[in-house]
Amino acid sequence: MTITELRPSLDARPNAALVGQPGSRAKLSTPALLLDLPAFERNLADMATWARQAGLELRPHAKTHKCTEIARRQVAAGALGNCCATIGEAEVLVAADIPGVHLTSTVVTADKIARLAALNERAQGLMVIVDDGENVDDLAAAMSPERPLGVLIDIEVGSERTGVVGLDDAVALAKRIAGHPSLSFKGLQAYDGSAQATTDYHARRQEADDRMAHLKAVCDALTDLGMAPGIVSGGGTGTHDLDRARGVFTEIQAGSYIVMDTIYNACDLRGAGAGTFETSVFVRTSVISRSHPGYVTTDAGLKAFSVGFGDPVIASGAPDGATYSFMGDEHGRITFANGADALGLGAAVECIAPHCDPTISLYDAYHVVDGDTLVDIWPIDGRGHW
Amino acid sequence: MTITELRPSLDARPNAALVGQPGSRAKLSTPALLLDLPAFERNLADMATWARQAGLELRPHAKTHKCTEIARRQVAAGALGNCCATIGEAEVLVAADIPGVHLTSTVVTADKIARLAALNERAQGLMVIVDDGENVDDLAAAMSPERPLGVLIDIEVGSERTGVVGLDDAVALAKRIAGHPSLSFKGLQAYDGSAQATTDYHARRQEADDRMAHLKAVCDALTDLGMAPGIVSGGGTGTHDLDRARGVFTEIQAGSYIVMDTIYNACDLRGAGAGTFETSVFVRTSVISRSHPGYVTTDAGLKAFSVGFGDPVIASGAPDGATYSFMGDEHGRITFANGADALGLGAAVECIAPHCDPTISLYDAYHVVDGDTLVDIWPIDGRGHW
Repeated sequence: MTITELRPSLDARPNAALVGQPGSRAKLSTPALLLDLPAFERNLADMATWARQAGLELRPHAKTHKCTEIARRQVAAGALGNCCATIGEAEVLVAADIPGVHLTSTVVTADKIARLAALNERAQGLMVIVDDGENVDDLAAAMSPERPLGVLIDIEVGSERTGVVGLDDAVALAKRIAGHPSLSFKGLQAYDGSAQATTDYHARRQEADDRMAHLKAVCDALTDLGMAPGIVSGGGTGTHDLDRARGVFTEIQAGSYIVMDTIYNACDLRGAGAGTFETSVFVRTSVISRSHPGYVTTDAGLKAFSVGFGDPVIASGAPDGATYSFMGDEHGRITFANGADALGLGAAVECIAPHCDPTISLYDAYHVVDGDTLVDIWPIDGRGHW
Repeated sequence: MTITELRPSLDARPNAALVGQPGSRAKLSTPALLLDLPAFERNLADMATWARQAGLELRPHAKTHKCTEIARRQVAAGALGNCCATIGEAEVLVAADIPGVHLTSTVVTADKIARLAALNERAQGLMVIVDDGENVDDLAAAMSPERPLGVLIDIEVGSERTGVVGLDDAVALAKRIAGHPSLSFKGLQAYDGSAQATTDYHARRQEADDRMAHLKAVCDALTDLGMAPGIVSGGGTGTHDLDRARGVFTEIQAGSYIVMDTIYNACDLRGAGAGTFETSVFVRTSVISRSHPGYVTTDAGLKAFSVGFGDPVIASGAPDGATYSFMGDEHGRITFANGADALGLGAAVECIAPHCDPTISLYDAYHVVDGDTLVDIWPIDGRGHW
């Protein structure tokens, strides 16, 4: 998919004419979300290779990228499909013919259950999680036995959001699902949200061990009852390698690996003491004022970055020691180590986002760059679909 | 403008069929941004009346609402036009025939200066701020003497972002502007960002007094030179009443008053000890899990609210004492005062956003409600336009 095939995404509009022009990266209207294509492709290949060698399937999470072009490339690299966080994202993925769409949130309201039922009629292999018996009955009533909806029981293993807590409750829920011909019990989901971003590999392993023992116990109990889970889906960028070692998971839902951010860059992901994936997403911003001594003001503030995970980190364009901070909704500040104003009006700086998912969901498009050139624009076509 | 006149905004799509149906508020797919029409209309009228009585013009800030339908209503209620924060927002406002568009950020890069020049050819009364002599020359070179661009000098009075700091520098910049026939010196802008949200009226007044004395000195110096500023634009929801009392401003740029948020709700805005404007924007979210004891999980997390200004405040739908917190990108948590799970699956709760501007800019549409009914959908058509 290229910009010419779709109505240009809003924030890409002024830059659309630059696609393919040598040196066009330097001419982008800012703030702009950049995707470094070679780094993206290395991340894509690296995770695919890791999964193949680990004997695990990949179903990367589209909540990170919200982009059917990226989903397509993940599937082309061997992924089963994509996970997603909202029924709206599932609709967008299915409309783009992405197979194996799995919705990692519960769907409980009547309006969304109706949307899910409609989607299940046209999607191949659609799955959703459940953690509540009443919800299982509601879903079953809306689906048809001719086309049963795949369901995974969500098991609480550290996310403290959705998920069945007790082993007996999980077993009871599996039986309840099995009693409905319009539902198909596919297995379990377990996402250890709290362990993803612990920076040290071995500390992260320790943290997650008890919770994974519980997941194993649920698997064993179901297996004893003749309901062995065919799928155990979970894990993330932070735990993918630990999850491999446990031998419980059949597939990994990692999302952030494809773009990375300051949180995951700080994590030792495979116990090697070095970063595994590369940052491929950057926010490009321009200096718009130098009127104050000691700092300059940029055009990217709280509306251009995720907030609450620390400040953006400057990747290029500013002298060593320069730091970025927020100055309200519309503005950022670059402060220089030597106290002087070291960047001129209009100078551009590229930053690593503190947290990739909520940064990406602020934008309508990736400006795909290769070196100095804007090579394509990929719409973030899942954004705003709830 | 109604939903039928435009391609439905993304997050409004599943709800579009509900417009006009009695009881439709209860059926909205969530998360959804709501605009309470009666409260909105009271805010609109209240600020218009205040300005008329104060003898001041209003040029409300569109960076808050990003919606041409709201801009149109503000102009119909007597506003001169709208301020905006980006050239993209200015383009959207002008395309919707909103008069008196003033861009409150500097425009310094070649691509955006070209866009500004093109916009100035078709906009009546377009203005932009400047704080730099070189930028003044660049703007002048791109405009035409047949249609000079209006410029306001931005004066530093507490925002610490853009703005000329010294009095002599401001005077020199005014002279430099006057030397360019393709620019028209219209006056000054002064936005005291740091004083807007001080909760106590009198403390806020004290805080801003020195900085406003500087603005007055700049006005006097320019007047002595025969360059009296015709426009002095500034102020916000937090200082509008204080700014009136100073007698320096000719117009007020307040934006948040039209929707309000937890920050401004905490402020005594007119020294009366009571809230002046009403919250008119809410985020509606649904309970999607009750599997954990003591709390329930909702479908609105870090991607559905501004972050960094405290937690959302529950306005309706939950028992007294219930509190809202973020549980990651996609989920929220409601914790109950008595420790029990007091809301069922699918129950909806409406929350006041911690900070209105960056919350609104996460959504594509306002779901306009009057009592129990969704009465219209207004696209947030300025979102994503940088």
